[in-house]
Amino acid sequence: MATIREIAKASGFSIATVSRVLSGSENVTEETRKKILKVIKELDYRRSQSIKGSSFRGIGVLVPDLKADYYGMVAEGIEEVLLRNHFEMFLSTYRHSLEKERDALEEFFARKVDGVIVCTTYQDEDCLEKFIEAGIPVVAVDRENSELKMDIVTIDNYDSSLKIAKYLYDMGHRKVLHVEGLMEVYSARERKQAFMDFAQKKEDFEVTFIPASFDVKDGYIAIKKYLDKYGKNFTAGFFANDWMALGGIKALKEAGFNYPEDVSIVGFDDSPLAKYLYPSLTTIRQPVYEMGLNAAKLLIEKLEGKNESKVKRRVILPTNLIIRDSVRKI
Amino acid sequence: MATIREIAKASGFSIATVSRVLSGSENVTEETRKKILKVIKELDYRRSQSIKGSSFRGIGVLVPDLKADYYGMVAEGIEEVLLRNHFEMFLSTYRHSLEKERDALEEFFARKVDGVIVCTTYQDEDCLEKFIEAGIPVVAVDRENSELKMDIVTIDNYDSSLKIAKYLYDMGHRKVLHVEGLMEVYSARERKQAFMDFAQKKEDFEVTFIPASFDVKDGYIAIKKYLDKYGKNFTAGFFANDWMALGGIKALKEAGFNYPEDVSIVGFDDSPLAKYLYPSLTTIRQPVYEMGLNAAKLLIEKLEGKNESKVKRRVILPTNLIIRDSVRKI
Repeated sequence: MATIREIAKASGFSIATVSRVLSGSENVTEETRKKILKVIKELDYRRSQSIKGSSFRGIGVLVPDLKADYYGMVAEGIEEVLLRNHFEMFLSTYRHSLEKERDALEEFFARKVDGVIVCTTYQDEDCLEKFIEAGIPVVAVDRENSELKMDIVTIDNYDSSLKIAKYLYDMGHRKVLHVEGLMEVYSARERKQAFMDFAQKKEDFEVTFIPASFDVKDGYIAIKKYLDKYGKNFTAGFFANDWMALGGIKALKEAGFNYPEDVSIVGFDDSPLAKYLYPSLTTIRQPVYEMGLNAAKLLIEKLEGKNESKVKRRVILPTNLIIRDSVRKI
Repeated sequence: MATIREIAKASGFSIATVSRVLSGSENVTEETRKKILKVIKELDYRRSQSIKGSSFRGIGVLVPDLKADYYGMVAEGIEEVLLRNHFEMFLSTYRHSLEKERDALEEFFARKVDGVIVCTTYQDEDCLEKFIEAGIPVVAVDRENSELKMDIVTIDNYDSSLKIAKYLYDMGHRKVLHVEGLMEVYSARERKQAFMDFAQKKEDFEVTFIPASFDVKDGYIAIKKYLDKYGKNFTAGFFANDWMALGGIKALKEAGFNYPEDVSIVGFDDSPLAKYLYPSLTTIRQPVYEMGLNAAKLLIEKLEGKNESKVKRRVILPTNLIIRDSVRKI
């Protein structure tokens, strides 16, 4: 829609006059009204032509944030595929706010996007259902199984976390802290569950769980508070991501403990940070960029009708335990 | 534009038949042709209505990457303002490739975006000129003065870097390494120039410049190679960003040097990393999120005609030297 200012400029009338026409005021001559309405029609027509002419197709992409590297990499993967297929990426961040998450989805819906990719979102099943019912395909990244008819791209969080538990056990660790990710998030719950199950199977393996979110600050605070209260009564710490591990390492160092000498450390993600810490960080490598690529590919297949089957797909990408220098055999 | 498949589905004819109509083949009855053309018209009308109905307005945003935190934060700032003003953000990354940069801008142009925000781009003046000539406003982030009529949001890179040089000098450092950012990038050139000028003024201040790009890996390689060749004949290192400082610190530690005991370290940006390294990193804080906010505000002012003046605006946001624990007085 043209703005009042644009209409005034194009028609040669004042903003006040245009405003009167738009509000339906009677204080305008019939001739003026006609002229202004004609200009509006032309401006709108030109705009719609230009949009149609560019055969505009857009995909709404919703991520929690772009502050750290994780979702930026997912978005780069998505963009790569969308660009190649001449789709535009509408990117929205919801900053871990349920309200903003729902607003962003409503906005996508109102703008009639051709498809939606949602990453690590929370309580949005009803919003997503609206898209699916309207025939707009949805692909989710990093999400548990759902009743909704949408494809999902994820990693095996449970199995990845189990690899870490086993590795720490094999390296002789029996008393471990797990600084959790946000429990609203599926991947955080899975990572925790694997450690709980492993500890239940192995009688001599004890895990203390510390609630936290995924932020670097939370890793720092979790360890600082724990040390203040209980002292260093553990030999290893597993953090729900690499950034939290960085925060935890800082709290340990401030209290005079080094890694891996005094405490062994394991992260998750293999963010660029992990390799360049010294000592470098043992972690799980997630194929983050590929998760984005695959999500966009599934969506485009659906849009182009290449996926005729009505079966939901769950694509699980492989992870690797990257053993570096932050775990000591004891 | 509807796809052939959509047209086939809506009209009840086969893809082959639709295809024949679209290609102008004579192998179709007049009745079929009419029916299919009617469906195409309806589908296009519905699409144009839906786009017009949502008063769709989009801004193209071009950033080098989303891998690290810097441009993600800029993008979050831009999004905040666009969302509030009911603009959609089309985000493209150009991955530091001149070809992709130009492609992305061409794509924005073809899609008739309402405005463009470009961050830290290279040789694109002719592409940007096209937008400006077409009356599509452009705002640049982190860019030197230009002949083009576009607003620019930036920080004073020269002055910020000079603050670091003076601080290192005051702390007793006389032999300093500067690991440079990519010289194609305006901010990297400014940061280098300040150190060159300072060294020219102070006879007892010597700087060695090491060419590099902005990547963490480059910081590591720059220091590793330097140490291999010349040994540790410097007391401080200034890195063009915090991530490069992380890489440099790793190379120093591998060679048995600690900071700030053996070498003092200064970064740039105040990324989340800086605060959580141990010892924490002295750096320049850039108001990254605010740069995004301000760029989007300038653009929207222009789009809404609030900025009547034809004068280009250059908005320079303040920086701060954040003194932490990585520089030692000698």
